[in-house]
Amino acid sequence: MIKPVLAIHGGAGAITRAQIIPAVKLAYEDALRSILAGGERILANGGSALDAVTEAVRLLEECPLFNAGHGAVFTRDATHELDASIMDGSTLACGAVANVRTIRNPVRAARAVMEHSPHVFFAGDNADAFAREQGLEIVDSSFFSTPDRHAQLIKAQETGVDSIVLDHDGVVDQPPLDESKKMGTVGAVALDAHGNLAAATSTGGMTNKWPGRVGDSPIIGAGCYANNASCAVSTTGKGEAFIRAVAAYDVAAMMEYTGVSLEHAAHKVVYEKLPPLDGAGGLIAVDKHGNITMPFNTEGMYRGSVVVGQAALVAIYRE
Amino acid sequence: MIKPVLAIHGGAGAITRAQIIPAVKLAYEDALRSILAGGERILANGGSALDAVTEAVRLLEECPLFNAGHGAVFTRDATHELDASIMDGSTLACGAVANVRTIRNPVRAARAVMEHSPHVFFAGDNADAFAREQGLEIVDSSFFSTPDRHAQLIKAQETGVDSIVLDHDGVVDQPPLDESKKMGTVGAVALDAHGNLAAATSTGGMTNKWPGRVGDSPIIGAGCYANNASCAVSTTGKGEAFIRAVAAYDVAAMMEYTGVSLEHAAHKVVYEKLPPLDGAGGLIAVDKHGNITMPFNTEGMYRGSVVVGQAALVAIYRE
Repeated sequence: MIKPVLAIHGGAGAITRAQIIPAVKLAYEDALRSILAGGERILANGGSALDAVTEAVRLLEECPLFNAGHGAVFTRDATHELDASIMDGSTLACGAVANVRTIRNPVRAARAVMEHSPHVFFAGDNADAFAREQGLEIVDSSFFSTPDRHAQLIKAQETGVDSIVLDHDGVVDQPPLDESKKMGTVGAVALDAHGNLAAATSTGGMTNKWPGRVGDSPIIGAGCYANNASCAVSTTGKGEAFIRAVAAYDVAAMMEYTGVSLEHAAHKVVYEKLPPLDGAGGLIAVDKHGNITMPFNTEGMYRGSVVVGQAALVAIYRE
Repeated sequence: MIKPVLAIHGGAGAITRAQIIPAVKLAYEDALRSILAGGERILANGGSALDAVTEAVRLLEECPLFNAGHGAVFTRDATHELDASIMDGSTLACGAVANVRTIRNPVRAARAVMEHSPHVFFAGDNADAFAREQGLEIVDSSFFSTPDRHAQLIKAQETGVDSIVLDHDGVVDQPPLDESKKMGTVGAVALDAHGNLAAATSTGGMTNKWPGRVGDSPIIGAGCYANNASCAVSTTGKGEAFIRAVAAYDVAAMMEYTGVSLEHAAHKVVYEKLPPLDGAGGLIAVDKHGNITMPFNTEGMYRGSVVVGQAALVAIYRE
């Protein structure tokens, strides 16, 4: 009998230099544990991997601690542009949205694209309009804003660089991973009792990104991939590098074509193929046997996994 | 010494049922030959594969016979939304734009994203704005319109279906491939004298597509991929299937991981992996040895190839 499993991530990055306040670290761990439990319930009740990853990513989007949905980072223009994708490993059906601004839960929009359109990918205002027509919850873009994310934008713009700023020195209640160096994405992968795999990914992108930029999160093959024949993968990291590496599909292709294990393939992509491309980040993946791997080449990655009915594991740094 | 090579395509599809007028067929063949010659000149003068594919795709965009740039198809709303991508096999650098409406040559915008931004992919109005800032030629969207493409939209909408219409019966001067069944994209792949590979792809998408839809053409890994270690690939076909199959990268991955030839890998993707996903279409590819393959699972594909200094080959149907 197949034991359903679920894994989630909330972004990868560098450990903050200042002293971590234990209570803040606990808040992140509690959030991961609670979100895992939300997805686990679906799998425990015989639900599909597709439903479990949709719900887990929806919960990650709802949590302001993570860079997706409410709590998404700001673009250079102090706006929000959200990306998401989802893939069903049993059919290779998939859906994605990019640069959406008013859909409360972008992962649900990605799923609606997959299930209710002849296409697999919509971008911009038309993606928002599609979600509205589908009856998904629409919010004002300010819904996604939090004071912490706005402070990050100001900090990034003060440094005068276009990409990632340096530090949060002096801030005392900072999170366990340095937000200014974090590659913020959320994602989930699951295996259900029927042996089906699914993956979903969602993000607000990079703080201070250029408006219109699309990262790897909505790109099937780069930020998200699922195939019952091999594995389900959700990535987080410097999106440009993950696109160049076709990172998510590369894990599956290596397994399919060389017969190596999930762990071997995922480690090879994260530790050998991504670094030469400036590919800081990590991924979570599960195979059809329920093996889970969560490698990252940064100092930490918010992550958690659970085999249904067993104790959940959550972690931020290396073991 | 490496013999530089260039291959191009102008879309795949079904043979039209009515009698083909030889003069119309010749017009397509002449266009392919002339465009090949334009790219070949660059390679013959020691130019890069990247410059050759940029120029070949620019010429395909300029030609109203092909669905990219001037001559692009219409969306459901009678607008144009263009997608393009490019990848440099020597560095894995890449760039892409989606849903642009005013950039005369989307392939140049993709290249500008690659060379002059910290990102690799822009979508929508912000992609147009980026191209404008880069000094690329901006046109009114009506520049892309041709009477033939508008007639195709009207025909598609009269059938009352959202996707592909059936026939052009009764039209006498129709092109060699049934435009209503054609998967219109253009693309180029090249190997230069320095041993570097490059690929580029550009499209107007599908006639009557939903606004905001993004197909495979701007997706690195699906519609375009290049890596000196394996091959350069540009695809054309039902974009949704090519995204699900991660088709372009799959050719490269199969070569890298199993050691099969370019032809073997490309044929496997086109004849075995895409059809179960409803993946009508084809691709062109070249490897580091200058081998070329141009498989398609439709009745025809506009295509051509040349080894620098030798006679060019152009074809539409099977040999």
